[in-house]
Amino acid sequence: MTIVTLMTDFGLKDGNVGVMKGVIAGIAPQAQVIDISHLISPQDIAEAALILARSAPYFPAGTIHVVVVDPGVGTSRRPLAAGLGDQYYVGPDNGTLTLWLERLETQAQPVAFYHLNRPEFWLPEVSHVFHGRDIFAPCAAHLAAGTPLDRLGSPISNPVRAQLPRPQRTASGLRGQVIHVDHFGNLATNIRVEHLQKSPDVTISLGGVKINGMVDTFGERPAGSLVALFGSTGNLIISVVNGSAADRLQAHLGEVVEVSLPS
Amino acid sequence: MTIVTLMTDFGLKDGNVGVMKGVIAGIAPQAQVIDISHLISPQDIAEAALILARSAPYFPAGTIHVVVVDPGVGTSRRPLAAGLGDQYYVGPDNGTLTLWLERLETQAQPVAFYHLNRPEFWLPEVSHVFHGRDIFAPCAAHLAAGTPLDRLGSPISNPVRAQLPRPQRTASGLRGQVIHVDHFGNLATNIRVEHLQKSPDVTISLGGVKINGMVDTFGERPAGSLVALFGSTGNLIISVVNGSAADRLQAHLGEVVEVSLPS
Amino acid sequence: MTIVTLMTDFGLKDGNVGVMKGVIAGIAPQAQVIDISHLISPQDIAEAALILARSAPYFPAGTIHVVVVDPGVGTSRRPLAAGLGDQYYVGPDNGTLTLWLERLETQAQPVAFYHLNRPEFWLPEVSHVFHGRDIFAPCAAHLAAGTPLDRLGSPISNPVRAQLPRPQRTASGLRGQVIHVDHFGNLATNIRVEHLQKSPDVTISLGGVKINGMVDTFGERPAGSLVALFGSTGNLIISVVNGSAADRLQAHLGEVVEVSLPS
Repeated sequence: MTIVTLMTDFGLKDGNVGVMKGVIAGIAPQAQVIDISHLISPQDIAEAALILARSAPYFPAGTIHVVVVDPGVGTSRRPLAAGLGDQYYVGPDNGTLTLWLERLETQAQPVAFYHLNRPEFWLPEVSHVFHGRDIFAPCAAHLAAGTPLDRLGSPISNPVRAQLPRPQRTASGLRGQVIHVDHFGNLATNIRVEHLQKSPDVTISLGGVKINGMVDTFGERPAGSLVALFGSTGNLIISVVNGSAADRLQAHLGEVVEVSLPS
Repeated sequence: MTIVTLMTDFGLKDGNVGVMKGVIAGIAPQAQVIDISHLISPQDIAEAALILARSAPYFPAGTIHVVVVDPGVGTSRRPLAAGLGDQYYVGPDNGTLTLWLERLETQAQPVAFYHLNRPEFWLPEVSHVFHGRDIFAPCAAHLAAGTPLDRLGSPISNPVRAQLPRPQRTASGLRGQVIHVDHFGNLATNIRVEHLQKSPDVTISLGGVKINGMVDTFGERPAGSLVALFGSTGNLIISVVNGSAADRLQAHLGEVVEVSLPS
Repeated sequence: MTIVTLMTDFGLKDGNVGVMKGVIAGIAPQAQVIDISHLISPQDIAEAALILARSAPYFPAGTIHVVVVDPGVGTSRRPLAAGLGDQYYVGPDNGTLTLWLERLETQAQPVAFYHLNRPEFWLPEVSHVFHGRDIFAPCAAHLAAGTPLDRLGSPISNPVRAQLPRPQRTASGLRGQVIHVDHFGNLATNIRVEHLQKSPDVTISLGGVKINGMVDTFGERPAGSLVALFGSTGNLIISVVNGSAADRLQAHLGEVVEVSLPS
């Protein structure tokens, strides 16, 4: 039973996600569909890239990740399918797979890319505004139903990569930024466990406040404390224990985070 | 494997949708349940009717659509099941199926209606306030598990039809209204592709602004442009490219939309 | 096919629920996963306890309910699995199962508790902040895949019980409080059908208003009427017909509700 995941910025009200599942069920009735998120901020490719890269490693081999965050729908941007390690990506060629692809390249995993240009695997009628339903869902379903990846389109070698903010070395340490604000108001930064060691001598500054040292988990400090720690997928996060750092610091996407390392 | 879809105004917090799925799983363990929406505006039958009519065509034959937007729960309004073309509707007899039914009638598809009046297909205990759980989920599950439609209740011929706003011909063209505001802030109108041809000479007016001509897709104009186009299921929609027309125009459900056709 | 339900306070944006489903699918591909809610108020164990207790009875025997509302993640609070009647609970040992457990004890159903302390059933790497993914999802999946409950951990007899507000007898009747505000703005109280008989002589007071008598269902009164009735799982609820009692009364969790019984 093949798993197809869905990630979109469609929201949950309008029925569009359900329609994609109806299309998939018609072509690949045995596929198991799992929602990753439909609340990606509208047109926010960077957010989708982050959530895809941290989610995909927890899915079984053969999983097909359909991601439709698609500001260029109906224009010349290519529909894309990719083999990424032992899983698959299906969606617009707009950089959504950038972070996941980089991690696989670091691990020397095999990758391959195809331009989805064969209408026999699409719905018979293709709208100008809903390729999630008309192209991506049916292509993913054909893949789930056993059509080989290389039959769905023509091979290409240059998928679009998104320009994502990267942390910088500074005189005293690192400068990064907030790249995700989660449901609890935790602020995730683009500074990762590879960039610094947890240490009592680290100081983290953002929004006019300083946090001295890091913790391993929320419960080490009383409710209401402002803490810094590594999140569950390795990013440095700023949190308020049982509260919201986003509310406390009035912080937002892109906010600069300075890390001073012990000298 | 039969598909059962769910559409309600229950929201996603209170667990009521999950409970309906538990009831279905107990009766029809092989059914595949797909959510269409649980964020229909409370008691908004017109919105449910629109989303049902545009979603159902993308589901396979045999799909059972359970729609519970039910301001009359516990009163004399009838519980209903219907055969609609090669699919099914289960829900209150309150007009939710109106638009879908009209399309099937236009296509001369077979339709049939049954009053769900046989308690042997309900939960043993039926509350006055949650027929989604106590009547509609179990009836849909029995249907999914193989009970014929005509065993679930008595045939009737007069299902309730909702009074929905229709576009009007005017001296210069058409007058319609906004019938749906989607997650992106696109404004869908009740004017459809059957009513007018896309043309550079069409002018669309609403909320004090005029849009000259129509586009095929968002990407034809720069981000921030106000455009008119046909949406993915044929309704005329007003959009801001990569933005929200609802925010820009402060538009709301029921807002009048005037279309001037070339003379 | 075993059912695994999920209830969390994770929200629906960040992908964490999808990741739990990916982990479950990798271990127990045949399990059927059903969402109960992911919009539990952050860290609100009482709300999770209420929704679990009223949802579980509608699920088939063998269902595994994974509940992750976990302010103590990463601290010494125990990970727990429980056999509760013919179903299961998997989640932190923080009192979430209190109300469901009480109902089963009233019915003299068998219950058993296990400390999930065997890492061979967890993911190989366990974070300090996401036990839903690293411990609870994999343990639930192993249970769904056939591992006996008593192999997942060591038996314990003293699960944590939450201190939940209980209704009190007063000179004139009962005093309770609002324990849940649902999607429609209905106010559910901790006064239940066991505590009072529906009667025209009952008076219910909260937020400076009095409601005389109770109804069976919303439709007995015109739209906009303030009514009191028993909800679908037996709690006394205060509603506005086709409207929001929460908005009308500006009521909130914990608001005192007085019931005067006929003398």
